[in-house]
Amino acid sequence: VVSAIGQGMAGHAGVSGRLFGAMGSAGINVVAIAQGASELSISVAVAEKEALRAVRAVHTAFGLTRLVHLVMVGCGRVGKELLRILEQTQTKLLEELDLQLRLVAVARSSKFIADGAGLSPGSLTPLWASAENRPTDPELLARVLEEHFTDGILVDVTATDTTELQLLALRSGLHVVTANKVPLSQNLAQYHEIMKACRKLGVRYNYETTFGAGLPVLHTLGELVNTGDELLEVRGCLSGTLGAICSWLDEGLPIREAVRRAEERGYTEPDPREDLSGRDVARKALIIARASGMELEPADVALEPMIPGLEVGLDQALQAAEGPLDERLAVAHSKGAVLRYIAEIAPGRVHVGLSEVDKLSPIGSLSGPDNIFVFRTQRYREHPLVIRGPGAGVEVTAAGVLGDVLKIATSGRRPPRS
Amino acid sequence: VVSAIGQGMAGHAGVSGRLFGAMGSAGINVVAIAQGASELSISVAVAEKEALRAVRAVHTAFGLTRLVHLVMVGCGRVGKELLRILEQTQTKLLEELDLQLRLVAVARSSKFIADGAGLSPGSLTPLWASAENRPTDPELLARVLEEHFTDGILVDVTATDTTELQLLALRSGLHVVTANKVPLSQNLAQYHEIMKACRKLGVRYNYETTFGAGLPVLHTLGELVNTGDELLEVRGCLSGTLGAICSWLDEGLPIREAVRRAEERGYTEPDPREDLSGRDVARKALIIARASGMELEPADVALEPMIPGLEVGLDQALQAAEGPLDERLAVAHSKGAVLRYIAEIAPGRVHVGLSEVDKLSPIGSLSGPDNIFVFRTQRYREHPLVIRGPGAGVEVTAAGVLGDVLKIATSGRRPPRS
Repeated sequence: VVSAIGQGMAGHAGVSGRLFGAMGSAGINVVAIAQGASELSISVAVAEKEALRAVRAVHTAFGLTRLVHLVMVGCGRVGKELLRILEQTQTKLLEELDLQLRLVAVARSSKFIADGAGLSPGSLTPLWASAENRPTDPELLARVLEEHFTDGILVDVTATDTTELQLLALRSGLHVVTANKVPLSQNLAQYHEIMKACRKLGVRYNYETTFGAGLPVLHTLGELVNTGDELLEVRGCLSGTLGAICSWLDEGLPIREAVRRAEERGYTEPDPREDLSGRDVARKALIIARASGMELEPADVALEPMIPGLEVGLDQALQAAEGPLDERLAVAHSKGAVLRYIAEIAPGRVHVGLSEVDKLSPIGSLSGPDNIFVFRTQRYREHPLVIRGPGAGVEVTAAGVLGDVLKIATSGRRPPRS
Repeated sequence: VVSAIGQGMAGHAGVSGRLFGAMGSAGINVVAIAQGASELSISVAVAEKEALRAVRAVHTAFGLTRLVHLVMVGCGRVGKELLRILEQTQTKLLEELDLQLRLVAVARSSKFIADGAGLSPGSLTPLWASAENRPTDPELLARVLEEHFTDGILVDVTATDTTELQLLALRSGLHVVTANKVPLSQNLAQYHEIMKACRKLGVRYNYETTFGAGLPVLHTLGELVNTGDELLEVRGCLSGTLGAICSWLDEGLPIREAVRRAEERGYTEPDPREDLSGRDVARKALIIARASGMELEPADVALEPMIPGLEVGLDQALQAAEGPLDERLAVAHSKGAVLRYIAEIAPGRVHVGLSEVDKLSPIGSLSGPDNIFVFRTQRYREHPLVIRGPGAGVEVTAAGVLGDVLKIATSGRRPPRS
């Protein structure tokens, strides 16, 4: 028995007509009907195996299914995985959350495809082949954004500077979900511009996957701050690459071999100096600091590179670093400690560098490419709150992006602020 | 300059009248005004120091501030702390989230106070003194529930069987936030009745603090499942009391002294057998298993008590346990392992008992009263996602309850399901 209408529809005219129209279009056979005089409540009997489809059809007809439009920029490894899980989860989302995510546009560096009626995430390949070559042009995207959406999300899975595009989306009233840390980690004026656009239009900007991939770090930080806690310090290992290298140093591997092994396993950026400079960790630390309310410029992050002197060349820098590193490591090991590349974020102070930590502490016991985040707050001052797990990876990042989309799609719009 | 109205109000008649009325009632001096012909946009200049109050006044006048009603049952240690942080955070919530939480009723075992206009969370003491002695009577509460609320939350911080009360609230269209694990950990039919009531009325039931206090465990589980991940296993230490005892055993303390020390520090229940029986851990494990979609009765949890034979008496049971425990511990230590009281939740199987784990593993390196949760899923199969931190405590539990309230208060209502 499906009695999906209930009180919500009280007083609406023509309820029964819409109801039966919806059931008819869905090809569902109505076995029996009971209706009160007021159309306040209508019950319909259908075969059990058709019940779920019937409920869905009725919800869609009465606007109870939430339809959210997605515009996706970036179609690299994370983007492709996101398409895969969008395809995989769509039935589940509709059945369990009454939610339909409709992909209406996808842009990659040289091509752009859009269809307001919805693109099938699993069947884009032929569309790419026949799409004209045209770089993602903000004008074109602006038109797409305007055509649609009371309820839309720009999903940014690129790694380039998309600030302008994100601002365009926010000002068009779209929410933004980004795995791209570039727009958030440049100068403070730009950061403020993004946050101001969100407040002004009451749209949301979710960026859980700009650090720690799918780990619930930003969620945790937000909940602590919103419930009135005071952040004393976030401390953590934010680079899987440097984490793996530190573990191999513990095992006695010389730094040159540790870096080579990281390259071989595909852990490093194409140029490993990007990782070894600590710049990537510094960007992530800056994003966490700003999310905690600190007003900092990139230059305010005190950055000690994992390997100094990289500007002269990788091999030379590694060779020069080997002696001093071995020495520090021997000192650390003799005290039951290890070296870890750590970001420390405390009010007014962000530091990124190699530090000695107790081998049995949560950070010291970390091994391999995992990330770890240790929160000390007024409430968690004696026993910190710790989150640990893979902080990189295509699968967990794409899932985290979908998680950010769902946070918006299952929640209300906040009112705009002046 | 306050220009809080914007496009949202387009087409509404009498905007300027309501606007100036609101400013006037708030005692805010309007310095200058600019208005378009259509009332689509009205800008008002006020003194900078009055800007925030002005925005708030306007938002409230136009219904942009969300008003959520709280009915609280239980006024023990967690309840009192919750009242304290409600008082402490109310200004922040209004300013930052445009959210007003209005406490309209508080019940404790023998007394009940209610005021639809709002109770001040920090000033209940005189009200309790003058309140009549009357136990919380579901009839009375039902009347309070009916009087109010398009948007209300029952907050349950008791530790008794409040199933009937919770069902009454859910069926009245209130959301429920509970730190009380009793209603969720009894027979399956009752669990289904709660979940069915939520689906039917589209209300939410948040219970993050029924295990792991304020740690974001349920949030993480929900996000993994919603984004299409498949749970392989949750493994963890869910009792701070038993965690502390296991740590002291590692340090060589005999079990009797470890239990005595836990009692002295206030870690145990009044009767320590409640902890040592493992029943509390079994309840939490059952809640996690059910949240993961497993249909299990309490008897389906395979429970090995921390200390067997407790029914004959605590001292006798501890004495009998000492020899075998010392032996197991010596075997474990000789292998670089430790003993931990672990809950394992895997599809179709829930087990709670003392197990040997590698000292350097995330669970093995846990010490003191912390909780730990290790998630293995399809996505996190090689490197698990780990959450660790205090799993008990008045302050973190009350904050977690407020976090659960905010998840509802900042999000939309889900449509009811048949």
